[in-house]
Amino acid sequence: MVTTTPRLPPSIRPAKTPQLATPWYFFHIIFSGSMLGLLYAFLRYEEHSAISPLPASLALSGLCFSLTFCLVLWLGPSFKGRGLKGVDMAKRKKEELPECMGLVAAGVYLFAMLVFIPCCFYEYLVITGGGGNRDSEMEKHDQMGLRFPHNKLAQYLSTLFSLQLTIFLGLLDDLFDIRWRHKLFIPLVASIPLLVVYRVDFNVTSILLPESLARYLSIPPLLDLGSLYYVYMSILLIFCPNSINILAGVNGIEVGQSLVIGTALLANDLLYIRHPEHPAAPSHLFSVYFLLPFLGVSLALFLHNKYPAKVFVGDTYCYFAGMVFASVAVTGHFSKTLMTLLVPQVFNFIFSTPQLFHIIPCPRHRLPRYDATSDCQYASITTFTTPPKGLAKFILKVFEGLKFVKLTYDKEGRNIIASTNFTLINMWILWVGERDENGERRIREGRLCWSLMGLQAVCCAVGLGARHLFARAVFGRDNLGTGIW
Amino acid sequence: MVTTTPRLPPSIRPAKTPQLATPWYFFHIIFSGSMLGLLYAFLRYEEHSAISPLPASLALSGLCFSLTFCLVLWLGPSFKGRGLKGVDMAKRKKEELPECMGLVAAGVYLFAMLVFIPCCFYEYLVITGGGGNRDSEMEKHDQMGLRFPHNKLAQYLSTLFSLQLTIFLGLLDDLFDIRWRHKLFIPLVASIPLLVVYRVDFNVTSILLPESLARYLSIPPLLDLGSLYYVYMSILLIFCPNSINILAGVNGIEVGQSLVIGTALLANDLLYIRHPEHPAAPSHLFSVYFLLPFLGVSLALFLHNKYPAKVFVGDTYCYFAGMVFASVAVTGHFSKTLMTLLVPQVFNFIFSTPQLFHIIPCPRHRLPRYDATSDCQYASITTFTTPPKGLAKFILKVFEGLKFVKLTYDKEGRNIIASTNFTLINMWILWVGERDENGERRIREGRLCWSLMGLQAVCCAVGLGARHLFARAVFGRDNLGTGIW
Repeated sequence: MVTTTPRLPPSIRPAKTPQLATPWYFFHIIFSGSMLGLLYAFLRYEEHSAISPLPASLALSGLCFSLTFCLVLWLGPSFKGRGLKGVDMAKRKKEELPECMGLVAAGVYLFAMLVFIPCCFYEYLVITGGGGNRDSEMEKHDQMGLRFPHNKLAQYLSTLFSLQLTIFLGLLDDLFDIRWRHKLFIPLVASIPLLVVYRVDFNVTSILLPESLARYLSIPPLLDLGSLYYVYMSILLIFCPNSINILAGVNGIEVGQSLVIGTALLANDLLYIRHPEHPAAPSHLFSVYFLLPFLGVSLALFLHNKYPAKVFVGDTYCYFAGMVFASVAVTGHFSKTLMTLLVPQVFNFIFSTPQLFHIIPCPRHRLPRYDATSDCQYASITTFTTPPKGLAKFILKVFEGLKFVKLTYDKEGRNIIASTNFTLINMWILWVGERDENGERRIREGRLCWSLMGLQAVCCAVGLGARHLFARAVFGRDNLGTGIW
Repeated sequence: MVTTTPRLPPSIRPAKTPQLATPWYFFHIIFSGSMLGLLYAFLRYEEHSAISPLPASLALSGLCFSLTFCLVLWLGPSFKGRGLKGVDMAKRKKEELPECMGLVAAGVYLFAMLVFIPCCFYEYLVITGGGGNRDSEMEKHDQMGLRFPHNKLAQYLSTLFSLQLTIFLGLLDDLFDIRWRHKLFIPLVASIPLLVVYRVDFNVTSILLPESLARYLSIPPLLDLGSLYYVYMSILLIFCPNSINILAGVNGIEVGQSLVIGTALLANDLLYIRHPEHPAAPSHLFSVYFLLPFLGVSLALFLHNKYPAKVFVGDTYCYFAGMVFASVAVTGHFSKTLMTLLVPQVFNFIFSTPQLFHIIPCPRHRLPRYDATSDCQYASITTFTTPPKGLAKFILKVFEGLKFVKLTYDKEGRNIIASTNFTLINMWILWVGERDENGERRIREGRLCWSLMGLQAVCCAVGLGARHLFARAVFGRDNLGTGIW
C-alpha cells in the first residue's frame, strides 16, 4: 500500500545505542567466548552422542545470559520509541523507562531452545560406527523412524509452541491492554498444544493419594482422575502465569521470584538426575533443559530490573515465566511439587480474594505507597466510605488478629475507616518494615524486593524439604519406582 | 513495577467499535452458524473416525472467514490507537488507516489450526468398537503409542511452530522497523523448526532431473543432493515470504496474489487427493488442511484491503502468506510446483535486481506515482544525475527493447535522463494502462490490482498446466508412483 510507514521522526529516535560499562564489556566477551568454546568442545567430542547434552545446555544458557544482558540494554531505546515505556512512580526522579523488556528475554530463550534441538536429539541423528565415521547404514535405519523418539520431539515442540504462544499473547496484552477477565484465559489458549500432545503422548491421568486418606475413602491410592486431570492441569496452567503476574509492583520482584522458583525446580530435578536409572530421571532431565536457559535469560533481565530499575519487564515476562514452570511440571508430572514452591503466590492470591471479589473495596492500584521525603515504601490503604459490616468486618477483624492487615479506626475507636490493602507485599511491609517517627512501618524498595525473594527462597526450601522428607510418611513412599507424583 | 501503564488517554481512544453493515451482519450469523453445524455434524457422525477430516477443515475455514472479517473491522481502532496506522497516499482524501491487520488474520489462522489438531488426529485418539461405544481396550493399545503417528504430529506442530515464529517476527518487524538486510533472514530463523523436523522425519533429499539431462550428464535421474537440499529449502523459505513482500504497494495486491497462489496450490492438491491410493496423496491432504483456513482468513482480509482499502495488512501478512506456501511445499515435497506458480514474483525479483544492486539508481520508494487530478496511477520514475553508461546503459536499452521500461531522453535524444522503475507493477502500468492526453500510460488503482491478480491467475494456470501436461515429456513420467517431485 502507498503509505507513510509508521516510521518515527528523527527527533524522537534515540541518538545512539547505550553502551556497556567497560567491566561488563570484558566480562561478556570472555564469558560468552568460553561458553561458545564449551559448546564447540561438546559438539566436537567424538563420543558426545553417548553422553547427555547437559554441557551443551549449560553453555547455551551462559550465551543466553550474555545475549539477553546486552540486548536488553541495546534495545531499550527502540522499545521506548514504540511507546512501550512507563514511569517508575516510586522514585524521586520520575524517569521514563522501557517497558515490556521481558519480550527480549523470552525471544532469546526461544531462539536458544530452537538451537538446542539438534544437541538434544543428536544421539538419534547420527550414530557413529566407531572412529568417528558416520555409519550410513545405521543412519539409514534410524531415518526410517525406528529409533528416533518422535514422541519426545513432539513433546519438546509442543512445550516450545505453548511458550511461544504465551509470549505472543503476552506481547499483545502489553500492546493492547487486554481486559482483566480476558487476560486470565491467555494461558489457557496458550496451553492447548501442550495439553493436546500430553493427551496423545503421555496421558497419565492418575494422582497418588496419601495412603491413610485412600484407606479412609476405600479407594485405591493411585486415583485415576480421567478427564478431570485435564481440568486440573488447565487450572494449573492458568494459575501459574497469573499468580506471578499479580505478585508484582516492586522493582525486580517479578524476575526475582521467578529466579528463586526456577532454581528450586532445578534443585529438585538434580535430585533425580543424580540417579539415571530412576524412572522419573528422563522427564526431570527434560525439565532441566527448559529451566537452565530460562535462568540464564532471567538473571540477565534481573540485573537490569532490580532496584533501581533500568527497565520494566511487562506482563510478557510474567506469563512466560509462569508458563515455563507450569509446562515443565505438567510434562514432567510433578505439579504437586511445583505447588509446594508457589506458597507465597498461592497465599497472595487467596489473601487478595476479598478485594478481588469486592467484599472489601478495591482501589485501582494496590501497590505500596511511595513517600518521596523518606524515599521509602509504606503499605497502601483502602478507605471505607461507610463502615464495613457483616462479612467484610469479620474478615477485617480476623486478618487484623493474624496481623495480615493494619486497620485505622475513627476517633471513637469503633468504626473501621481504613485498612491496608490485601496483598502479600503490603503485609510484608507491616511485618519487616522499620517504624518511622509516627510509628508507621516503612521499608526501602530495594530491601523490600530482596526480603521478598528471601521469603520465597525460605518457602521453596521448606516446600522441597517437606516434599522429600515427609512424602514417605504421608504417601507411604517417596516417588521411587513409580515416576508419578 | 510502579508505573503509569502505557494506557491511552481517553481522547484518542475510539469512541465505539465500528459496526457490521446489516447484510454482512446477517450473512455472518447464518454462515458461521451453518459452519458450526457442519463441524458439529462431523464430530457427531459415528463413523467419522474412518473418514477424512476434510469437512471439519472446510467448516473451520468458513468460521475463520467470518471471525477474521469481524475482528479486522472491530480491532482496527485499537491498532490505530497503538500507533499501527498509515496514510494511503494514493487517495484524494488522505485518511489514517489501521496498519498490520494481517496479524489478526494470522492469529485467527493459528487458533483454527490448534483447534483442528484433535479433528485431524481423531481417528488415532478414539477407535470405536462398533455401535459408537469406545472400546477402551483398543484405545489403551493406541495410547501406548503403537499406532499414533507421532511423526505426523511432529510435522504438523513444527509447521505451525514455524508459521507462528514467522508471524511473531513479522510483528516485530512492523513494530520496530527492522533493517532491510536483517529482514531478509526473518524467514530463515522461522524455518528452523520446520527444517529440523524435516531432517529427522522425512529427510528425502533427492530431486528428479529431466531424463535427457541425466543421460547427458551420465548421472542417475533421481539425484540425491544431501545437505545441499537443505540449502535449497532454506533459499525457498527465504525467497517465498520476501517475494510476496516486494510485490506490494497497491491496495489489495499482497492479499490478492496470495489468494490466487493459494487457490492454485489447493487445485494442485485436489488433483492428488482424488486418488487416495496415490503415494503423494497423504502429504497433499496435509497441505489442504493448511491451505483451506489460510484461504478463509485471506479472503476476509482481502474484502477489507481491496481498493479502496479500509486497512493495511503489514509485513506480517506477507511473511505469513509466503511461509504458508513454502512450508506446505517443503513438507509435501512439491517445491518445484510452487515455483511454477510464483512466476510473477520471480520475474519481479529478477527484474528488480539492477536497482537493488544499485547498477541503476534506486529511489526510496518505487511505488506507482499517484496523480490526484485524474485519480490514476502512473509508472514512477527514477532520474539520472549523470547519463548512464556501460552496463547500466546496456541494461536500460535491452529492457526498453523488451518494453519493460520507458526511457526519457534529453532534447538531443541521445542521453537517457530518466527511466521508469524496475518493478512488475510499473511495467504492468506501461503495458495495460490507457493513454492520457500526453500519451502517458495510466490506470486506476482498483483496475491495477484486479489485472495483476488476473496476470497471477493466468501464470498459475499455465504453470500448473505445464507442470502436469509437459512433465511426462520432460521427466519421462509425471510423479505417479514416486511421491517425489
